[in-house]
Amino acid sequence: MGPPPVHLLGTGTALPGEPVGNDRLAERLGIPSAWVETFIGTRTRHFAVDLDTGRARWTLEDLCTDAADRALANAGADPSEVDFIVLATATPDALMPSTAALLADRLGIQGAAAYQLQSGCGGAVQAFAVARALLSLGPAGLGLVVGGDVCSKHLDLGQDFRDLPPAALVNYVLFGDGAGAAVVSGRPRPGARAALTHLEHRLAGLGLPPGQRVEWFGAADLRSGTAPRTPVREDYKAVEQRVPELARELRDALLTAADWSPESVDYLLPPQLGGRMTERITSELGRGLEWEPVSCVAETGNTGNALVLHQLDRLLPLLTPAQRALVLSVESSKWIRAGFTVEASDA
Amino acid sequence: MGPPPVHLLGTGTALPGEPVGNDRLAERLGIPSAWVETFIGTRTRHFAVDLDTGRARWTLEDLCTDAADRALANAGADPSEVDFIVLATATPDALMPSTAALLADRLGIQGAAAYQLQSGCGGAVQAFAVARALLSLGPAGLGLVVGGDVCSKHLDLGQDFRDLPPAALVNYVLFGDGAGAAVVSGRPRPGARAALTHLEHRLAGLGLPPGQRVEWFGAADLRSGTAPRTPVREDYKAVEQRVPELARELRDALLTAADWSPESVDYLLPPQLGGRMTERITSELGRGLEWEPVSCVAETGNTGNALVLHQLDRLLPLLTPAQRALVLSVESSKWIRAGFTVEASDA
Repeated sequence: MGPPPVHLLGTGTALPGEPVGNDRLAERLGIPSAWVETFIGTRTRHFAVDLDTGRARWTLEDLCTDAADRALANAGADPSEVDFIVLATATPDALMPSTAALLADRLGIQGAAAYQLQSGCGGAVQAFAVARALLSLGPAGLGLVVGGDVCSKHLDLGQDFRDLPPAALVNYVLFGDGAGAAVVSGRPRPGARAALTHLEHRLAGLGLPPGQRVEWFGAADLRSGTAPRTPVREDYKAVEQRVPELARELRDALLTAADWSPESVDYLLPPQLGGRMTERITSELGRGLEWEPVSCVAETGNTGNALVLHQLDRLLPLLTPAQRALVLSVESSKWIRAGFTVEASDA
Repeated sequence: MGPPPVHLLGTGTALPGEPVGNDRLAERLGIPSAWVETFIGTRTRHFAVDLDTGRARWTLEDLCTDAADRALANAGADPSEVDFIVLATATPDALMPSTAALLADRLGIQGAAAYQLQSGCGGAVQAFAVARALLSLGPAGLGLVVGGDVCSKHLDLGQDFRDLPPAALVNYVLFGDGAGAAVVSGRPRPGARAALTHLEHRLAGLGLPPGQRVEWFGAADLRSGTAPRTPVREDYKAVEQRVPELARELRDALLTAADWSPESVDYLLPPQLGGRMTERITSELGRGLEWEPVSCVAETGNTGNALVLHQLDRLLPLLTPAQRALVLSVESSKWIRAGFTVEASDA
């Protein structure tokens, strides 16, 4: 017998400004638009930074606040009911205070506990794992699970992009900014749309080099000039190889944990790396099965910690009673597999 | 009836290199040694950076690995028994992968869940709060709670310190680098030294400006020169005023939650800002009572997320059966009060 389910009362998302298409992005970076289409397969993304001026227009705090507001409205809940916030991000606005604590302030929540996870694409699942554990101690309360990323501090628009090797350029066309949120409870409430029933979260890369590394700089780096020239590095080949493997392992582990036959699953929320890789993984994972895919990455870009919450926001309105969904995410940093099962609540 | 206790099976700490005294520090910074003694009251601290060359000699990962190794040895536990890691820090080595995930690798742990909290002085308590919740779902396993900070990226040794106002200078004399760890379980085990029985963790600064802010920079800041000149800012006046208030509130909340009379408490682990402020708070909090204080800050400096773990490492060998301790921490970032009660295990 596993832990009790986490009830999903409502979700909300936020994306900064207008979508930026491949033509616009390619023109700004001085690279061929076709390369983005073919190599990445992502059509649009949103940036918190103005692409012309380089000026930041939204902070992570702004986006998380909008997403949380919408999730609370969607759940019909008041901020005063929130007992805790778990916010996951790779790109906090500052090292201190946490964006989670500042979000509580923006929502007018006093006395809650605010946790902030430093994480990547698996972060939203990590946040659900922490929320599930906290709800097991206080099932009556409400929790707010938030995930988001804003890459503006690393979006160096002043450089000559034509000089960059594909391994560096990929970071400018793969990612986007955004946030998502979900209101959760340990007990069912009227209007609950669905429940998270089984969750897996494991490191799966003992001894392997990281697939992604993102640095930060401090005052000492600025003076000494020791900051690395490529603060964001991807081993895209390793990602392409390992993510499908880990997604398969995760799929099988969740089906076993939930004691579900593959045929009983209705929806698949697959890992969201780029539009193209996601399409490939989706068709492979659900081969021979009628799993309806629920993805966002082709429109939002890879929004890191926001992805799973954007996918859930798309899933919940689709669910009819007794339907089932598999949520799979893989973080290529130090190879983390993180996912969960979702079951529709009774009407 | 609150959550079940968290059993403390062992602790360990790590500090980089030799202690740096006030004379040496003052000489290096070109400031009066007496100012450090009088204003801060911290006698020594350790730095992960060589003060002469500015070269980093230890990473946060190094220190956390040493502390975790020692905690596991102290607990008589093997890394393979660890189900999860919760690591708290304000100063991760990188934004991705998490130091928690890399620590798991260094310890040779496969398949565990690794969580990393972005936090300040209250971070170790936040990590215990998450560990307590995770243990409530899986009480049979072991968890590793780790906290640490390495301020080398912000330790800008190239500047002229004589130019700095006290509000900036304080960051160079108040802080130190270090890590601490504890092995925890949801069920008592032979050799368990003590148990965490009640825990408080709340935001307590709705509408107040942060008392501390620490920035990070990215590639875009480096090019544009938009990085603020003082990436670490303290409102030391606000800290001096609010921390004692919050510590009193926290003391009272914990005594009430545990239903302890003040007279029944044996040890106080007070907030560790600097040697001087800690002395003042300690004498005020335990006025008229025979509470034995357990502090480390005068020797370690303010090591942020490591502090509570260093204090616990000093407390556990002192405890005799039926003894009680109050652990109080206050994070001045967005004003967080975080603490817990400890009870000695039966011999």
